[in-house]
Amino acid sequence: MNAPENGLVNALERPANGFTRLIDIVFPGDANHHGTLFGGIGLAHMDKVAFLVASRYAHVDFVTASCERIDFHVPAHVGEIVELTGKVVRVGRRSLSVEVDLVAEAPLSGERRLSTRGVFNMVAADPLERYGGALPPLLDEPETPVSESASCEIVFPDQTSHYGSLYGGHVLAAMGKSAFVAATRHCRKIVVMAASQRVDFMDQVLAGEMIELQPSIVATGRTSMTVEVTMVAEALLSENRRLCGKGTFVMVAVDENHRPVPIA
Amino acid sequence: MNAPENGLVNALERPANGFTRLIDIVFPGDANHHGTLFGGIGLAHMDKVAFLVASRYAHVDFVTASCERIDFHVPAHVGEIVELTGKVVRVGRRSLSVEVDLVAEAPLSGERRLSTRGVFNMVAADPLERYGGALPPLLDEPETPVSESASCEIVFPDQTSHYGSLYGGHVLAAMGKSAFVAATRHCRKIVVMAASQRVDFMDQVLAGEMIELQPSIVATGRTSMTVEVTMVAEALLSENRRLCGKGTFVMVAVDENHRPVPIA
Amino acid sequence: MNAPENGLVNALERPANGFTRLIDIVFPGDANHHGTLFGGIGLAHMDKVAFLVASRYAHVDFVTASCERIDFHVPAHVGEIVELTGKVVRVGRRSLSVEVDLVAEAPLSGERRLSTRGVFNMVAADPLERYGGALPPLLDEPETPVSESASCEIVFPDQTSHYGSLYGGHVLAAMGKSAFVAATRHCRKIVVMAASQRVDFMDQVLAGEMIELQPSIVATGRTSMTVEVTMVAEALLSENRRLCGKGTFVMVAVDENHRPVPIA
Repeated sequence: MNAPENGLVNALERPANGFTRLIDIVFPGDANHHGTLFGGIGLAHMDKVAFLVASRYAHVDFVTASCERIDFHVPAHVGEIVELTGKVVRVGRRSLSVEVDLVAEAPLSGERRLSTRGVFNMVAADPLERYGGALPPLLDEPETPVSESASCEIVFPDQTSHYGSLYGGHVLAAMGKSAFVAATRHCRKIVVMAASQRVDFMDQVLAGEMIELQPSIVATGRTSMTVEVTMVAEALLSENRRLCGKGTFVMVAVDENHRPVPIA
Repeated sequence: MNAPENGLVNALERPANGFTRLIDIVFPGDANHHGTLFGGIGLAHMDKVAFLVASRYAHVDFVTASCERIDFHVPAHVGEIVELTGKVVRVGRRSLSVEVDLVAEAPLSGERRLSTRGVFNMVAADPLERYGGALPPLLDEPETPVSESASCEIVFPDQTSHYGSLYGGHVLAAMGKSAFVAATRHCRKIVVMAASQRVDFMDQVLAGEMIELQPSIVATGRTSMTVEVTMVAEALLSENRRLCGKGTFVMVAVDENHRPVPIA
Repeated sequence: MNAPENGLVNALERPANGFTRLIDIVFPGDANHHGTLFGGIGLAHMDKVAFLVASRYAHVDFVTASCERIDFHVPAHVGEIVELTGKVVRVGRRSLSVEVDLVAEAPLSGERRLSTRGVFNMVAADPLERYGGALPPLLDEPETPVSESASCEIVFPDQTSHYGSLYGGHVLAAMGKSAFVAATRHCRKIVVMAASQRVDFMDQVLAGEMIELQPSIVATGRTSMTVEVTMVAEALLSENRRLCGKGTFVMVAVDENHRPVPIA
């Protein structure tokens, strides 16, 4: 593990047993026209988390071999926050199982409901030479504290330039979403971005790397919240984590007519 | 042609004259804010089908040279099923013409309307050495029966990992959509996924391959339908087809308040 | 600069100081569920324009180093046209600054509001040998006239086939959007595509190239407008521009029930 830099202890520590959280918002394009998340899209999100968890547990390439029965208890609605968390629950010689929860969170009330839970069986596609031919056993590690609004995302090849590095625009969109979630959770009102303050890009992010966005509310006014978002990149096949970007965003609580309202 | 395996005759047979069907749902992101499919998006879908038809007719790379006049008779609306079918209608020495129909289907009434029809002229970008320098002539083959809810899709590079194979999550999303269409057509009610039963991934799918999803209703209850979906991958530049995945999904008919209702 | 061909003076001339315009429509998937564009998505659009402006100013690879404070004055709504324009405003030895405006335009009234403006600092990632080690100084060039509805777009790797060239379907979708914007601006009514007339693809477009769509209204009827759209591709690392496609589209003004209405 790298030494933490800049006091970003959480941002640069790796959680135990591959624990990974991904936070997103249900967009209309992911929902049927009655406004609930398509089951298949939910499954796709869950599989992505399972892939990240497996890759962070053992730094080899994994493929999904199967997923067990998954029940959809309650639907997630358009505009809700969905929070997916996954962790390794079983380790075999060349395969492991990842349990993934999908929680739907109403943005204004904060009500959270377990929408679905599933187990994905992932198989190592590499020879595992670095681990002596078998995956390392599951440890009874204490859980590393992870900021509750930190969100991981894999960088797909289509988000990179033809030079292979993540476009700044994707980073800005991801930072904006992270600030949106943190501010919404802080005030439980409709929030919009009033300003993006200085954003710095320290290092390039490559396709196949994971990025982790960590928002924190650094100041509040009567109707506004200032959210600092750091972006750490993590090479999935190594232990390497590095700070790649930092931005500050001013989010304002508004009513349905887009007029500012007090945050508390 | 490969020998059918596992009794999947339809799933592993190639239809005559490149016949290809693609089924999708009109999402809000593909529509203007009055709720009808953008003409340009419809054209993009049609071109994708034309590319698949040409590639399946002759296993060489094709590019779209032109498309003839295309009239939009009636619009497709958000939430409707769109079914595109294409087949080769003319073959020249190095080019061929593909006729593509776009049918809009109301999910609850089942009413189908021919929204538009177009002809795309595709030119081979390869030397055609394997065919002696000219495309093979169009045969008066009998139409191969193809399941009416089977849907083909091309695997774009952005859907693959940086190892070049299709992410499991995309497969789950595609299988979920296939089960959704089959269940909707079975009961003509709003349907949601209640459970994903065991899903197995037998083989990797590579960028540039075509996948065909074939759903079939294997059991029904009072409010539920169990849909088995198989996924076959087809290498466009060869005759190679192979079973790559299979999943079972429980779909439930619901009313507008998300309460289960009888399917008949 | 290449000599203009086919009388397409505007289409084949490069504007001064990297001036670039990108026109898009606010889709539901880019907005919160209260119908206004997410700040982060707006920032992502702006960064893309900054990248294009920098690349067209000096033909080397650029990365975004930082962006200065950006204020969101008024929101853009779903269904509105967003027009982003950018130009180089400062040039250093290895870096330059691009100012980007984002204007929201109501499609029916034509009202335009400056939604936000930002400055992006871009750094050359290449050794700049072709420029003697430093970026060329900013000239006080007269502004090249650019058609007000011409729109540029970068071709991402995910829009290309596994042979590396842009899919015809993406071109058709982009041409359709261009015709939609031009026709909407002409009549300020709801418009739909009634027909796509012959579309020709003269040359392939490669990943990493920029395309510029230029629509022009070539005929009008009582309820219809015929829009010709040309597509020019521009290799960002060279001066090379070439005509790659041309299509003609019949757009019809309709009321909310999709019945044709007079355009004036």
